[in-house]
Amino acid sequence: MKPRALLFDVFGTVVDWRSGIIRDLTKHFESFPCRFAPAVVADAWRAEYQPSMEQIRKGNRGFVDLDTLHRENLRTISHQYSFSLGSSESEDWVVQAWHRLPCWPDSREGINALKEQFICASQSNGHIALAVNLARYNNYSWDVILGAEIVRTYKPDPDAYKRAAACLGLEPSSCMMVAAHNYDLKAAQDVGFKTAFVRRPTEHGPNQAIDLEATGDWDICVESLTDLATKLACR
Amino acid sequence: MKPRALLFDVFGTVVDWRSGIIRDLTKHFESFPCRFAPAVVADAWRAEYQPSMEQIRKGNRGFVDLDTLHRENLRTISHQYSFSLGSSESEDWVVQAWHRLPCWPDSREGINALKEQFICASQSNGHIALAVNLARYNNYSWDVILGAEIVRTYKPDPDAYKRAAACLGLEPSSCMMVAAHNYDLKAAQDVGFKTAFVRRPTEHGPNQAIDLEATGDWDICVESLTDLATKLACR
Repeated sequence: MKPRALLFDVFGTVVDWRSGIIRDLTKHFESFPCRFAPAVVADAWRAEYQPSMEQIRKGNRGFVDLDTLHRENLRTISHQYSFSLGSSESEDWVVQAWHRLPCWPDSREGINALKEQFICASQSNGHIALAVNLARYNNYSWDVILGAEIVRTYKPDPDAYKRAAACLGLEPSSCMMVAAHNYDLKAAQDVGFKTAFVRRPTEHGPNQAIDLEATGDWDICVESLTDLATKLACR
Repeated sequence: MKPRALLFDVFGTVVDWRSGIIRDLTKHFESFPCRFAPAVVADAWRAEYQPSMEQIRKGNRGFVDLDTLHRENLRTISHQYSFSLGSSESEDWVVQAWHRLPCWPDSREGINALKEQFICASQSNGHIALAVNLARYNNYSWDVILGAEIVRTYKPDPDAYKRAAACLGLEPSSCMMVAAHNYDLKAAQDVGFKTAFVRRPTEHGPNQAIDLEATGDWDICVESLTDLATKLACR
């Protein structure tokens, strides 16, 4: 049976965060030099992402948005990799790089095609403003933005998926999680969602070691969002 | 200075709730006759709307969504106007009439044109699923759905507007409330929003007595959402 709604992971699945962060760190380092490559710093910044959310998922810390976590993590790595953030304006600009990430070449066309048939929702760990800004930056749009700020926790907390389905007035079985990450799909499947794995083998750059292939029993595996639109239409 | 985001009231401003409710009550009364005209019952149902929200705005009752209030109010008026709701399925169908309201003839084109320049947000007293379903039913879409379920209170509570601006990461002065109701604009203006009055002189039918004209010092007054797009583009 077809789902009624598709809930999309965004970072890695819809947008190419690594290229966007490398691009803006490269620009920042023109004014505030760093002896490490932008790609190395980008990967280090992203590596802080899961641990920083874990404190909130565990209940050790109240909910804060991703701008807050990105800023804290940026300050940590600026010390580790010995570069200056400059003024509060230049620091803000680097934190806001996450609002200016380019989408993958197939994302806009894929989302538009999928919206013809399904409710398409952003279900990211990003907050509302971040999801809005990424969509407008890339000229795609969602039927509805759900995600961390609305469900008040971070994926893969089971409540993140359950509350998102409830917001749509749907049972979990009417929802399909669309993600490039096996852990995200596993958590969604565990609460009754359908699952679509999108292979994004360069999300982490040329040496990517995880999520190169589906590792679970997902309902559908695709190479792009346009591929997903084609395959779901044929079911 | 132009706003960054437009926040839209929906019932009356974007959709013609009265025609939609009359249409579906007419259909319901084919199976469950009522000696009152569907328009009379529709107006009676809508008249229960503000008082039912008032208990939540006052803090006498925790937040519940509009389906819940619509259902309670429907049961009240079914007694007053002596008609049967039939089975739980037929009652559900009538409650869900609020998810199937037609938009005004200018709404789709107006929203699409306004999205070119501004973040366009649904800022309704409806909950998320209701806003999504109305948009998909009418084939328009928002950049983001805000509103009662996200801000956890009902307009014209000042927090409804303040929290909506905060969700977008914007100051109130960067937001413009777009509404056909003077009371809504007054509350938005009081917290620092810009304001656009859309004249909808038939929202309440042929004998409409309120909101026929702007009664406040609004930033802009228009006859339709396409008119708003034209006038904001020229500023």
